[in-house]
Amino acid sequence: MVGLNAAQTQRVSTGLNLSRRIRRTPYTARVEAHGASGFSVVNHMLLPKAFQRSVEEDYWHLHTGVQLWDVACQRQVEISGPDAARLVQWMTPRDLRPATVGVCLYLPLVDQHGGMLNDPVLLKLAEDRYWLSIADADVLLWAKGLALGAGLAVQVDEPAVSPLAVQGPRAEDLMAAVFGERIRALRHFRFAGFDFDGTRQVIGRSGYSTQDGFEIYLDTPELGAALWDTLWAAGETLDVAPGCPNLIDRVEGGLLSYGNEMTRENNPLECGMARYCRLDGAVDCIGLAALQAIERGGVQRQIRGVLFDGDPCPPCGEPWAVRARADGCPAGQVTSAVYSPRLQRNVGLAMIARELWEPGQTVTVLSADGVKRNGTVTTLPFTEDPG
Amino acid sequence: MVGLNAAQTQRVSTGLNLSRRIRRTPYTARVEAHGASGFSVVNHMLLPKAFQRSVEEDYWHLHTGVQLWDVACQRQVEISGPDAARLVQWMTPRDLRPATVGVCLYLPLVDQHGGMLNDPVLLKLAEDRYWLSIADADVLLWAKGLALGAGLAVQVDEPAVSPLAVQGPRAEDLMAAVFGERIRALRHFRFAGFDFDGTRQVIGRSGYSTQDGFEIYLDTPELGAALWDTLWAAGETLDVAPGCPNLIDRVEGGLLSYGNEMTRENNPLECGMARYCRLDGAVDCIGLAALQAIERGGVQRQIRGVLFDGDPCPPCGEPWAVRARADGCPAGQVTSAVYSPRLQRNVGLAMIARELWEPGQTVTVLSADGVKRNGTVTTLPFTEDPG
Repeated sequence: MVGLNAAQTQRVSTGLNLSRRIRRTPYTARVEAHGASGFSVVNHMLLPKAFQRSVEEDYWHLHTGVQLWDVACQRQVEISGPDAARLVQWMTPRDLRPATVGVCLYLPLVDQHGGMLNDPVLLKLAEDRYWLSIADADVLLWAKGLALGAGLAVQVDEPAVSPLAVQGPRAEDLMAAVFGERIRALRHFRFAGFDFDGTRQVIGRSGYSTQDGFEIYLDTPELGAALWDTLWAAGETLDVAPGCPNLIDRVEGGLLSYGNEMTRENNPLECGMARYCRLDGAVDCIGLAALQAIERGGVQRQIRGVLFDGDPCPPCGEPWAVRARADGCPAGQVTSAVYSPRLQRNVGLAMIARELWEPGQTVTVLSADGVKRNGTVTTLPFTEDPG
Repeated sequence: MVGLNAAQTQRVSTGLNLSRRIRRTPYTARVEAHGASGFSVVNHMLLPKAFQRSVEEDYWHLHTGVQLWDVACQRQVEISGPDAARLVQWMTPRDLRPATVGVCLYLPLVDQHGGMLNDPVLLKLAEDRYWLSIADADVLLWAKGLALGAGLAVQVDEPAVSPLAVQGPRAEDLMAAVFGERIRALRHFRFAGFDFDGTRQVIGRSGYSTQDGFEIYLDTPELGAALWDTLWAAGETLDVAPGCPNLIDRVEGGLLSYGNEMTRENNPLECGMARYCRLDGAVDCIGLAALQAIERGGVQRQIRGVLFDGDPCPPCGEPWAVRARADGCPAGQVTSAVYSPRLQRNVGLAMIARELWEPGQTVTVLSADGVKRNGTVTTLPFTEDPG
């Protein structure tokens, strides 16, 4: 493996002014050695955002090979103890009673107004021990505050668990080479324990891509480099590459990003998560009364796809207004957008008013470059023939 | 004022992949037009980190002229309602009973273990209304969780308030030109209301530098550009420049940074905040029992300055080990460091074990470039003659 010298450390830090506050991960040195050309910050931690290949080249590779992603920024909020199940259920409208140990569950976290606070994946490790694998917000403080305020008998902590994702159609072959054939039987959104270098690690069949994949919840930071190197060596015949969440794949696949597609201003019914909302009173959730009222009043907007014309669109750094094509009335906003080389159109994730949210409605997208682009509302994920 | 074209937007986003999740501020367009060359992320929001001048040039300018800083990322957590005073006091060991409306108070926020959750400045707006002007962590979620869990009668929210700092020895002249002569009478760490463009804005005499300065808590985002431009125009004869928190000034002045000098693993007694800890039971704070126990057991480490030799040190992206010079035993870690052109030595903020924390103790700093540097423990702030 390539060593890192001081000059390289300087280079990759350009533009972000690295400090302890923006935490490095057990894999950052490897990611730097592979030439990461940019980072984002999620949960006070580095997330690589690009390597030497373009986003489009990365996209095609993700659909054919296998990639290693440093997603340690998906921090775990561990909730354990006698009241753990009660606290976790209180935080989400998703009915957790059917959940068994070994499942991963995608779910909304809401406040008392039904506002989205996060959309983590829950791992049920035991009847009294859970991990929330979180998007970008300090769920740790929320859970600690609730527990302390309500006097619940729980421990809330952020363990030193740093997910490494292995994504792409050849992920299963790579994982089997390192963790044994048994891993092939792991079902989607299930996790189990597997051995690595004398340790037992949680591995889930999951990931933030449309492709097959796994997430290794490494709880031994000092093994980060060894884990990366072992996967890399085993992947040399499998077209392995360094990667990161790919914007084209994410938008095409309709994978939401907390802070982008939704904020505290949105509720899960607007975010297409009605199937994760048990609102008949069978479960006790903080936002229950608010969500019941929203349901009674009728949801006024919802996340949709928008397929739109013109040259490849610029980066969507701020929401872009969407208007009804017919009368120019406000119809919502695009919150993430990118050019899809597969569909040969721009694709966007958008919050769309109910008047316009039916697939096929025609809209105008006002992108940041000042261009007005003709668009069509679609269901998600995007498909070849939005018909 | 210079307009921003799409190419410029592209340029400044390089390396950070801007998205809605990393929020722009009411001043970002102005900061970009002034050629900001890098950003950091604080509270899910952009903080400019450099302009066209070097950190050293910026440092000298900060000590002679006046600078405009986009510190909108210092978000306000507003706590209001009948139980507001009770909740705010519960969050901090600082005795808030003497606080009057109009004061700014620096204070530690702690959890039930006495661990630091933040070090905001509190603005008491009314007997039942407070702002916590926060460092980088979602205090909003902590306060909301505590309030909801304990059933307190409060509102907790993040208003659209975006501080713009005016820092430097000529800040008072600039502020007087824009807000009137009355502002000269505003005392350090006091705030009051001042008029701007038909609105009333909170302005405090405060800021994250060693120099005189003010922070304008603009609550009208659409006036961001006008506020910037008005200050800029009035500053043309006062050597105004765009700026940002300056690492040299911050370290020399012993100004702490949450996430750098301290984390949840540290308590306020370690962070030199004993004077903000009322531990005799007169106030009801979450961490009271834990802090009393820590005080009884004796504090084992504390933040100090370290003055150290050698070429200008590299950026301190991760803590650097500090060892006792005499016997090589672990003595702590440097958490922020930079070369001081005034002292012509490297200066660092460090958490130092009690055995070595007396000024004058000799230590070795192991910086990231592999160099072992001779250092001396000092009090803070750093002075010309550390004695």
